[in-house]
Amino acid sequence: MRYLITFSYDGTNFYGYQKQINKRTVQGEIERVLSKINNEKIVISASGRTDAKVHAINQKAHFDLKKKFDQDKLINSMNKLLPKDIYIKRIEAVPDNFHARFNVKKKTYIYKINTGVYDPLTRNYIFQYNKKLNLKNISECIKPFIGEHDFKSFAKSNVECKDYIRTIYSIDIKEEKDIVTFRFEGNGFLRYMVRNIMGTLIAAGEDKINKEQIQEILDKKDRKVALKTSNPEGLYLYNVEY
Amino acid sequence: MRYLITFSYDGTNFYGYQKQINKRTVQGEIERVLSKINNEKIVISASGRTDAKVHAINQKAHFDLKKKFDQDKLINSMNKLLPKDIYIKRIEAVPDNFHARFNVKKKTYIYKINTGVYDPLTRNYIFQYNKKLNLKNISECIKPFIGEHDFKSFAKSNVECKDYIRTIYSIDIKEEKDIVTFRFEGNGFLRYMVRNIMGTLIAAGEDKINKEQIQEILDKKDRKVALKTSNPEGLYLYNVEY
Repeated sequence: MRYLITFSYDGTNFYGYQKQINKRTVQGEIERVLSKINNEKIVISASGRTDAKVHAINQKAHFDLKKKFDQDKLINSMNKLLPKDIYIKRIEAVPDNFHARFNVKKKTYIYKINTGVYDPLTRNYIFQYNKKLNLKNISECIKPFIGEHDFKSFAKSNVECKDYIRTIYSIDIKEEKDIVTFRFEGNGFLRYMVRNIMGTLIAAGEDKINKEQIQEILDKKDRKVALKTSNPEGLYLYNVEY
Repeated sequence: MRYLITFSYDGTNFYGYQKQINKRTVQGEIERVLSKINNEKIVISASGRTDAKVHAINQKAHFDLKKKFDQDKLINSMNKLLPKDIYIKRIEAVPDNFHARFNVKKKTYIYKINTGVYDPLTRNYIFQYNKKLNLKNISECIKPFIGEHDFKSFAKSNVECKDYIRTIYSIDIKEEKDIVTFRFEGNGFLRYMVRNIMGTLIAAGEDKINKEQIQEILDKKDRKVALKTSNPEGLYLYNVEY
């Protein structure tokens, strides 16, 4: 039986989603708990990894169990055994050929920036930029990113990847008091892609770059020309759709 | 020269506000930094203590310095040396006879409850009650608390205090999606008073108590008759006025 779980986590105290030996990871914690409940080694496949300190509101992963489980009981057992910074929200049976990564149709990421005074209470959940941003220039500079592009310039520099083509459906900005929230929707995102685009958009907010220069960076398909990678703590994997 | 500082802190990783030997406290951190900057032992006097895991948005404290300081420079030096979970927001010169505790005219506390699904991302900042509350009964049950009363029934049980009389000006409730926010305004609050009132109001939200029974508890002036103390992590010292 194949199951799909939807779960949220606070990335602050994890070395990222993906399992690593002797490091506290989200995948490691969930596999430990599932394996304990089932008395056999269970491996989960997520929609994709998230980096250290990055959060998730609705991350998804599939796994196979030999026995059939009552889904409510399984959720309760998992949440009882999991640490408080991970929470299983939903579990559903899926076809045997379903794959949490390969079947993704749409992913949504959120990025939050505090443009007001430093706030110790949100320091792990909102990037403390603590200066005003030129949102007008940012809105202009979003345009080159929308649509299907080769995003190599915005990928993680030292990681090779077969296919850098991704489609961004939209990047929306919402301003509420001092908090600016960016919402990215696309068919998929390369490693560091959201944070590299955010680094560039923050530079746009500082009037250090314009739309034409961003188009040039995209066209070069070279990670070395892109700008800073923005902080991980403002980033949330918000949703995964199939 | 006497100075008044306004500061915020994330109470999650502190053993409360008040200095304790070999324990990480807010007062201990601020005094360490002030003493270092001034090359002499500085003691600060706050508007009152907050307990372990309780947060502050605008806590206030006074202290005396022999030298006159440029206030902007002093704030910057302090924030550079302080850990990331404390932030000095403001510093102002005050008269020599000003006292951050004795001169308080009004204090505001906030208490946040999540009545929806458990959220790992806000677990240290919003009490994860995770069930619906009867807000209608809560609104009724707030009434006996308003005004000047002897709040002995709602004080910390094992702490003696000369005067249990306090005045609560208002308790307001705001509901935003699943988050219920209580705002307490009064001329002062006893130790555990907000959390003990909240424990009682949560019982009201579960229809376990009514207005008349709360009036009886208040009249008994005996801590042993009151209900549970609610969790610390939903509580914020929001403001102190002089």
